[in-house]
Amino acid sequence: MQPSPSAAESSSLTRSELEHASPAEVRRAIREGRWRANTKRLALGYHQANLTIVPERYAFDFMRFCFANPRPLPLLDVTEPGDPVPRKVAPDADLRTDVAEYLVLRDGQVAERVRSLEKIWRKDHVGFLTGCNLSLDRVMLEAGMPLPHLTSEEAFPAQYRSSVRCTPAGAFRGPVVMSLRPVPNALVVPIIELTSRYALSHGAPAHVGDPAEIGIRDLSKVDWGRENVIPPDHTTMFWACGITAQAAAIESRIPEMITHAPGRMFVTNRVVRESTL
Amino acid sequence: MQPSPSAAESSSLTRSELEHASPAEVRRAIREGRWRANTKRLALGYHQANLTIVPERYAFDFMRFCFANPRPLPLLDVTEPGDPVPRKVAPDADLRTDVAEYLVLRDGQVAERVRSLEKIWRKDHVGFLTGCNLSLDRVMLEAGMPLPHLTSEEAFPAQYRSSVRCTPAGAFRGPVVMSLRPVPNALVVPIIELTSRYALSHGAPAHVGDPAEIGIRDLSKVDWGRENVIPPDHTTMFWACGITAQAAAIESRIPEMITHAPGRMFVTNRVVRESTL
Repeated sequence: MQPSPSAAESSSLTRSELEHASPAEVRRAIREGRWRANTKRLALGYHQANLTIVPERYAFDFMRFCFANPRPLPLLDVTEPGDPVPRKVAPDADLRTDVAEYLVLRDGQVAERVRSLEKIWRKDHVGFLTGCNLSLDRVMLEAGMPLPHLTSEEAFPAQYRSSVRCTPAGAFRGPVVMSLRPVPNALVVPIIELTSRYALSHGAPAHVGDPAEIGIRDLSKVDWGRENVIPPDHTTMFWACGITAQAAAIESRIPEMITHAPGRMFVTNRVVRESTL
Repeated sequence: MQPSPSAAESSSLTRSELEHASPAEVRRAIREGRWRANTKRLALGYHQANLTIVPERYAFDFMRFCFANPRPLPLLDVTEPGDPVPRKVAPDADLRTDVAEYLVLRDGQVAERVRSLEKIWRKDHVGFLTGCNLSLDRVMLEAGMPLPHLTSEEAFPAQYRSSVRCTPAGAFRGPVVMSLRPVPNALVVPIIELTSRYALSHGAPAHVGDPAEIGIRDLSKVDWGRENVIPPDHTTMFWACGITAQAAAIESRIPEMITHAPGRMFVTNRVVRESTL
């Protein structure tokens, strides 16, 4: 199904209708074009994932890159070459159709945005699913930490290239991309305690405080996502982010990488539980 | 250094001298031929690891095999192709020299036993380190669970091929190899509680009780290790074991795999901590 570009942002469902839907229901709504926006608050309590597809000859390098950089890229699943089904975390899903929008990067540049991979999926494609902060939306709500992206339809975390470098692996090298969430000062310690227990969703923040210390000079220059308003009495907290994969494709000029469009994650069947790595 | 075969079992150090040695000291003793026996109780509190080396064209398959089977094969490190240094868990070590004895398997059969890989290491070799039960020797001692292999110099856990199958990945398929430890009945629950908190060392037992339920008909037919005496009032408890990699090489007739000789593990610098996967 290739909906017309003019329908790009319309969805026939509301977010609250999908909050308590099953992962399979959310994926079906996405597959059928009934949900096209970002996936925050959807299927609350299940892991959402960054999708990264590379040709097999880059796949071992990318798997080592994930293993060497588990904070930004905690691995949830990897497919057999040519198999579009993530058999560990969603054996009833199809990576070619179950994401609302995909980016095709060639030689480190976004060459195309598509709504399905059915026509471009190849036998040598390997899919990787890595953890995402949105997986913790339910944990945050239950802990009484209604971060801005959870309470306002418009808000979404902003992501920045940082000066922190990934451990390289094979062809892959690049910066750790950081996701900024402004947190009320009184919640800084509790949110560190809470997130540190969820390593598969990036774990504890990678940096708290002055953005310049991790090479982010101007918060208005957002690399991905939307600029956050930093209210008074809030602290800038940064978590490692899965867009790190895309930043590595760009810096390393990987010939071909296909990813989800930022914010439009793949929803897995895996329940979020505490984890360490 | 290639000591003569006649010196195979002699060691110029005693086990108790190396119990509280650092991992680097233990590796040096092994490298210099001063320690040639199994590594139980050595460098107490540090991760010991199964070593698996495969050519690069099998490496992505093997990495997926580990990922799909984290109970027997929890991944601690993987090297860049051709690099004999495990940079994550022991950047001062060398996989070619720091294991007491290696097995070279060709087409699924043990073709050679060697004391160093210096002459056979190639640029396309990739090394994998996976978790091992011996890593928990200190945890067991501190918890007051002196299992037989910890109290008797002769005792060592026995390993068996089970009827439980690994999730296949690429060229790799085979049985889950199980390590048998007889446990006093009163310690069955406490040892499940304890080991379940250490996923990088195989976690909770994979089976408790009748060996026939996992396809092990005769405990006297040991596949690796030494036969255990099962004392009265003891329960047979089975943990997934890293020798699973070797069993997969045998069943899948992998053209080349190099491993540590059973019981002679690679000692890492990584401190054992609780982990979940």
